[in-house]
Amino acid sequence: MKASRARNLPTPSVQRLPVYLRFLKEARRRGDDVVSCTRIAEEFGQLSVQVRKDLAITGVSGRPKVGYRVDELIEAIERFLGWDVKTTAFLVGAGNLGTAILNYEGFAEHGLDVVAAFDANPALFGKEINGRLVYPLDEIADRAAELRRQGRPVEMGVVTVPARAAQPVADRLVEIGVRAIWNYAPVRLDLPSDVVYEDVKLSASFAVLTNRLRRRDLEIVAD
Amino acid sequence: MKASRARNLPTPSVQRLPVYLRFLKEARRRGDDVVSCTRIAEEFGQLSVQVRKDLAITGVSGRPKVGYRVDELIEAIERFLGWDVKTTAFLVGAGNLGTAILNYEGFAEHGLDVVAAFDANPALFGKEINGRLVYPLDEIADRAAELRRQGRPVEMGVVTVPARAAQPVADRLVEIGVRAIWNYAPVRLDLPSDVVYEDVKLSASFAVLTNRLRRRDLEIVAD
Repeated sequence: MKASRARNLPTPSVQRLPVYLRFLKEARRRGDDVVSCTRIAEEFGQLSVQVRKDLAITGVSGRPKVGYRVDELIEAIERFLGWDVKTTAFLVGAGNLGTAILNYEGFAEHGLDVVAAFDANPALFGKEINGRLVYPLDEIADRAAELRRQGRPVEMGVVTVPARAAQPVADRLVEIGVRAIWNYAPVRLDLPSDVVYEDVKLSASFAVLTNRLRRRDLEIVAD
Repeated sequence: MKASRARNLPTPSVQRLPVYLRFLKEARRRGDDVVSCTRIAEEFGQLSVQVRKDLAITGVSGRPKVGYRVDELIEAIERFLGWDVKTTAFLVGAGNLGTAILNYEGFAEHGLDVVAAFDANPALFGKEINGRLVYPLDEIADRAAELRRQGRPVEMGVVTVPARAAQPVADRLVEIGVRAIWNYAPVRLDLPSDVVYEDVKLSASFAVLTNRLRRRDLEIVAD
């Protein structure tokens, strides 16, 4: 896991690419062919040099006094992020969080192709959520084998189960051969080093917010 | 917004505090009084010097060759994050994502006290989700005024509506006087500079994961 993390720096630059991408797609819709680094920096309240550095990881550099070609930059970001191809995925945990993810179309635009959902709760078996059926978790290996035979191996597992169920679910996903796990459960997973993974850290986001609020309070008191 | 961001560095350190906190609470349950920086670093695959730097922002430093006092460090992290006090909040958007957040108990442990949920969909009015009632969005100002009279002003708004509804909802939250917004909608909000905010960037998380997967593919091809 350490090796996998170390290899993927600079993470903050990667994390900023989606917002640049959204901005560039809006620019394309408006008919802009070229956009300057300064313009992007202004939009996001960042330093121009930081934007240039972020975008450079995709292999594209802007031309001095001209800027970036919008089409070229969109393509480079999507290729760098792997968003130019479809990623076949299973989602495990068809409760409210899983349903919210299945209903949100934004990830599909980034290539996420959730082909089936799984749950341990029989009340959910056979339910259809935004076009995907919910299967019994016990059938996950059979479904994966079927897709493999169709030439669509499952590459990613999206884990939206409660914390206590996350590790056993991750183990099953590893068994069926997924190569990536996107974990929404508030727990660290123990995974083989050849499986890439990412935790959605909602507590980290909440920490940043409440820390800001606390600091703001202290400033007001100090005033 | 720029000023607010710049003032809150180093964000990555703040983001790591919740996982240290969880680990420290487990240590306390096991009966450990003291924990070394090296032990924490090992647990999370980080450099010892990074852990020390992260923890130093809370104002606590470990004693050489001894380590941190677990109780003291837990208290310092919770105080630094503002998790030692309750934060009264409204949640707007009682769909699947909002329901998932209301059902998750973890944020309550960090002081988040969602006292009411709101939605524009009449089918949800009066529904109870984990002890919270869903009110019509149009009643949000009245509810906020009522709480203010009770000496419990609403400090935070949790935004779990679709992207197109997020800005108008944020505007209403600002009108009723919230001082912090936790935004789950995939859109950047335009907010007054005295309101602190944090976006839950699910696309950023997905970008990190798919970029890792793509890099792994390239390595395999190169082998």
